[in-house]
Amino acid sequence: MIDRTDPEGAIAAAARRCSNWGRWGAGDVRGTMNFLTEARRAHAASLVRRGVSFSLAQSFDANGPQKGWRRRTNPVHTMLDTGTDAVAGVQGFPHGIGGADDVIAMPLQCSTQWDGLGHIFDHGRAWNGRPADKVVTSLGDGVTGIETVASVIAGRGVLLDVGRALGSGGELPDGFAITEEHLVATIAAQGATSAVGPGDIVLVRTGQLSRVRRDGWGDYAGGAAPGLSFTTADWLHRTEIAAIATDTWGFEVRPNEFDDAFQPLHQVAIPHIGLFLGEMWDPDALAADCAADGVYEFWLTAAPLPITGAVGSPVNPIAVK
Amino acid sequence: MIDRTDPEGAIAAAARRCSNWGRWGAGDVRGTMNFLTEARRAHAASLVRRGVSFSLAQSFDANGPQKGWRRRTNPVHTMLDTGTDAVAGVQGFPHGIGGADDVIAMPLQCSTQWDGLGHIFDHGRAWNGRPADKVVTSLGDGVTGIETVASVIAGRGVLLDVGRALGSGGELPDGFAITEEHLVATIAAQGATSAVGPGDIVLVRTGQLSRVRRDGWGDYAGGAAPGLSFTTADWLHRTEIAAIATDTWGFEVRPNEFDDAFQPLHQVAIPHIGLFLGEMWDPDALAADCAADGVYEFWLTAAPLPITGAVGSPVNPIAVK
Amino acid sequence: MIDRTDPEGAIAAAARRCSNWGRWGAGDVRGTMNFLTEARRAHAASLVRRGVSFSLAQSFDANGPQKGWRRRTNPVHTMLDTGTDAVAGVQGFPHGIGGADDVIAMPLQCSTQWDGLGHIFDHGRAWNGRPADKVVTSLGDGVTGIETVASVIAGRGVLLDVGRALGSGGELPDGFAITEEHLVATIAAQGATSAVGPGDIVLVRTGQLSRVRRDGWGDYAGGAAPGLSFTTADWLHRTEIAAIATDTWGFEVRPNEFDDAFQPLHQVAIPHIGLFLGEMWDPDALAADCAADGVYEFWLTAAPLPITGAVGSPVNPIAVK
Amino acid sequence: MIDRTDPEGAIAAAARRCSNWGRWGAGDVRGTMNFLTEARRAHAASLVRRGVSFSLAQSFDANGPQKGWRRRTNPVHTMLDTGTDAVAGVQGFPHGIGGADDVIAMPLQCSTQWDGLGHIFDHGRAWNGRPADKVVTSLGDGVTGIETVASVIAGRGVLLDVGRALGSGGELPDGFAITEEHLVATIAAQGATSAVGPGDIVLVRTGQLSRVRRDGWGDYAGGAAPGLSFTTADWLHRTEIAAIATDTWGFEVRPNEFDDAFQPLHQVAIPHIGLFLGEMWDPDALAADCAADGVYEFWLTAAPLPITGAVGSPVNPIAVK
Repeated sequence: MIDRTDPEGAIAAAARRCSNWGRWGAGDVRGTMNFLTEARRAHAASLVRRGVSFSLAQSFDANGPQKGWRRRTNPVHTMLDTGTDAVAGVQGFPHGIGGADDVIAMPLQCSTQWDGLGHIFDHGRAWNGRPADKVVTSLGDGVTGIETVASVIAGRGVLLDVGRALGSGGELPDGFAITEEHLVATIAAQGATSAVGPGDIVLVRTGQLSRVRRDGWGDYAGGAAPGLSFTTADWLHRTEIAAIATDTWGFEVRPNEFDDAFQPLHQVAIPHIGLFLGEMWDPDALAADCAADGVYEFWLTAAPLPITGAVGSPVNPIAVK
Repeated sequence: MIDRTDPEGAIAAAARRCSNWGRWGAGDVRGTMNFLTEARRAHAASLVRRGVSFSLAQSFDANGPQKGWRRRTNPVHTMLDTGTDAVAGVQGFPHGIGGADDVIAMPLQCSTQWDGLGHIFDHGRAWNGRPADKVVTSLGDGVTGIETVASVIAGRGVLLDVGRALGSGGELPDGFAITEEHLVATIAAQGATSAVGPGDIVLVRTGQLSRVRRDGWGDYAGGAAPGLSFTTADWLHRTEIAAIATDTWGFEVRPNEFDDAFQPLHQVAIPHIGLFLGEMWDPDALAADCAADGVYEFWLTAAPLPITGAVGSPVNPIAVK
Repeated sequence: MIDRTDPEGAIAAAARRCSNWGRWGAGDVRGTMNFLTEARRAHAASLVRRGVSFSLAQSFDANGPQKGWRRRTNPVHTMLDTGTDAVAGVQGFPHGIGGADDVIAMPLQCSTQWDGLGHIFDHGRAWNGRPADKVVTSLGDGVTGIETVASVIAGRGVLLDVGRALGSGGELPDGFAITEEHLVATIAAQGATSAVGPGDIVLVRTGQLSRVRRDGWGDYAGGAAPGLSFTTADWLHRTEIAAIATDTWGFEVRPNEFDDAFQPLHQVAIPHIGLFLGEMWDPDALAADCAADGVYEFWLTAAPLPITGAVGSPVNPIAVK
Repeated sequence: MIDRTDPEGAIAAAARRCSNWGRWGAGDVRGTMNFLTEARRAHAASLVRRGVSFSLAQSFDANGPQKGWRRRTNPVHTMLDTGTDAVAGVQGFPHGIGGADDVIAMPLQCSTQWDGLGHIFDHGRAWNGRPADKVVTSLGDGVTGIETVASVIAGRGVLLDVGRALGSGGELPDGFAITEEHLVATIAAQGATSAVGPGDIVLVRTGQLSRVRRDGWGDYAGGAAPGLSFTTADWLHRTEIAAIATDTWGFEVRPNEFDDAFQPLHQVAIPHIGLFLGEMWDPDALAADCAADGVYEFWLTAAPLPITGAVGSPVNPIAVK
């Protein structure tokens, strides 16, 4: 199926088949978020039944998986004021008030995050065909900064628990490439509530996070992992989903499916489809609930911080059923 | 009403009247978030009608209001990789893929944020009566870190647009103390959809943000501002709201209502009521919509980043009507 | 003298006259530091007489002059562990030991600093004629990073106290352009110990720092200031000095001497002469001593931190007489 | 010799024998730096013969040894402007000038550094007997901040290459405790130039850095290492040295020489002797030169950055022979 020796050719072909360039006008900065219409958002809210909520975020702290690849480190959280200072009476505030403040330094891709449209380029072209060097400079993404979608990422979420449907013990092995067939089989196994359609935010659970939570991070950040096959590009395009996220570092299967490649599906999905990718999400508590009640759709809010010019954002996605 | 010379006495009396210590058990870490039950959350979702969404966050960038008070600075966002690098061909990736990554350093209270329960102490006591120096050390908040409420802050939001109801040109002047009477009058003016009850997340618009957006930041970060009167402590307690936020730097009126004081309402609200306070929110787009359609209630998700041990968190609150 | 309308022509002409490209071979990364030979360094050490030492660094803290221009902020120094924590007994160390640790986030050009050879380019060319985009990417300066001169910046320092020699009350007014004539006159006024020659590190005192120390920072970071005239390029080249530093933000006079210009002398000095520029140094204590004893030469060590790939470095220069 | 079961008793006894509290008055903030007089500094400068200079600093970059212990991470250096941006023409500067700027975030103890006097406490007491919680709060060290010695750390350096004198292949094994006898034997082996006296800055080379440079960092940051024995406290005190540094992470031997201990020699040396400790220095190039010419004394400048209130500082020590 895949010619392992020609990633560049395969990417070019998939890009041609799946391109959304110009679909929403030359000035578009929202890509597939355009599929998440108000009508679909209103429908999605009707999925809330019990009022139970789930955070789909991993922790943001020093005990994370990052090992420094391209300077991606774990967050460093430090205190500007503390309770010990307050009790020691050194803060200088009146009438017995004391306070604590804090600060963080972190890569925006350190933990649960969105890839914005300025995150990946194909041969120097960013989303909608713009020259990458006119979009993202040292000053940030001046066109498609993550703030441009700050208000819209709330809609219908669908969990595709491929790990539970097709894996062993709820987990796919590292290196497992999830194809369209696997996605379709998972939907079939899960039933009608997991049908995927335009404007949906799809959450794919591979089970890798459950595994590293049990066994230690290992090479979670960039090593072998289950993930989407390069061949799913057409499904990602055809279904008109608004976004897709996984419980892995890099969304697509690793090692990648070409002899010499780096994240080839990203190269189609972000600049050509204009698709928002979520990585390092934690679906486990939600997935257990879905397995229990058989309902795989939910209301999902996954609002990035509106960091001006950012090419991604940490996020705490909240699913409500 | 207020004895301006005795903040400590007034705080102690209000703390006695309004204390929720022990209400949810000695081990409680969620305070008033306990009022936001699943039943109430489910009801709140039914408020979504049109599917229109609003971000209530200000920008996170260097053009913010912070001036360095207690080392609160504006965010510094820098790039780890850029489009210009990608186009220059210096990234070393195969098959024409290029990428951009970024990093941020920021105080957690720099822009739109939640104050967590470890943010303020009263005479060395944190929420639920715990010794502040056993709760928040240089390692962070080991008990009530913001991650403890990461999954629950989603429910019914109510906008009290006091600026529009009682101000001039939609804005209250700096130094205006919003009392319970003002809140009640605003609710009455706005109508039934703005009734406030248990588990609600109340958003108070003073109009100050509209003013500084027009006139420049000035002393937005800590200077004179409209805000809640110290005397609203009982209302905050009695209504059993889950949280309350404003469009100002400091939630309560500034200058404070005592001769020598610093944020006395915080000293009651956070450690004694266990109330979550939001600051520097941007209600303006939502408020215009509420004024237009007369509906002041909405579905609100305001999920903090689960930064382990943080005493606050930046947040992008999303309101959906 | 200067055609105020043609900075580009003036820069090109000066660059032609003053270029050191190729002087030390195609692979050179040290520029004018090559003039600081071991023999000259040995001689410089003989200038130490009394053993009195002076720090020529300004403070590194939040009370600095930076206002955010191109994200240059003041340093943010936070604690990882504190004495209050130690006393509170929350650190978990045995036998009564307690500790404090800290962290800093700062632009490398925030306070007293060296400009490295990768800091400024002329029409896309870096020092020695290299293409700027092959030298400094998002990963840093891969060729002339400041670490390449980490061991060598120690030699003869010479103070040219132009403020004292030619100014009023020891200070030159903002906008005062120091020409070669002014430098020569200062040397003449100060006497034989201030003769300038190959390998020297020249420190020019304008007095502006004394003024802002007295009056407040104002626009020290980028505003009007005394400084070197564009016309000193030939003197900087001819004298074969190793480096030159001032007590101002930007080394050269501001406003610059062309109608529309930005730091034109930098554009000749760094990429063409290969000269190391020091900025925001504090010469005041040393200058008082020199004025008192009439000796303007000294042993100077100004070692940058070897931050791999940095285009500049904070520095604490130490003069010893 | 050492009762391995009683670190607290041993520390208390050594503290009594070696205390310098009050020696330079109740207000003293410089500790043993008081031994480094101007006369001694002047003499030290006479040690420069050839003018050859050595940086004793390790690199400051992401490839460092830190693994996150107590949030000590490796430096993160990012660019604010780049050469690729300059060449892409996106910087907006006139007349062809381009620029690069950068920023760093790092623990002050991440690489080659000084421990300041506020870095370690004994039973809640800091240097000179001050209460630790009145010295170092979340705002930093308000009394003995590293800026208080910014101008003085320049004087006679002495290399004690214990690794070469007593080790195998120039290296001591991990866990090797260097005693006074070893120091004396090294001095004897090296000859007269390595005599140690008041005001000297002693550099002890164990060879561990050579080993990890060859074999990889391993547990350099906190693991087993050669280092000073706890029993050298009296020698450190008696010799009246101004400072001492090693090529290891933690100065003293690790594992420590008590059954349950953490850096007990620090607990005597810093708060009681008032001694400045240097860690993670790189003596290798200098040591090779000393071995070659038999001269182990030199002029040393090791100026900390004057970071206000810091309990330590990165440093690039420069030795000149």
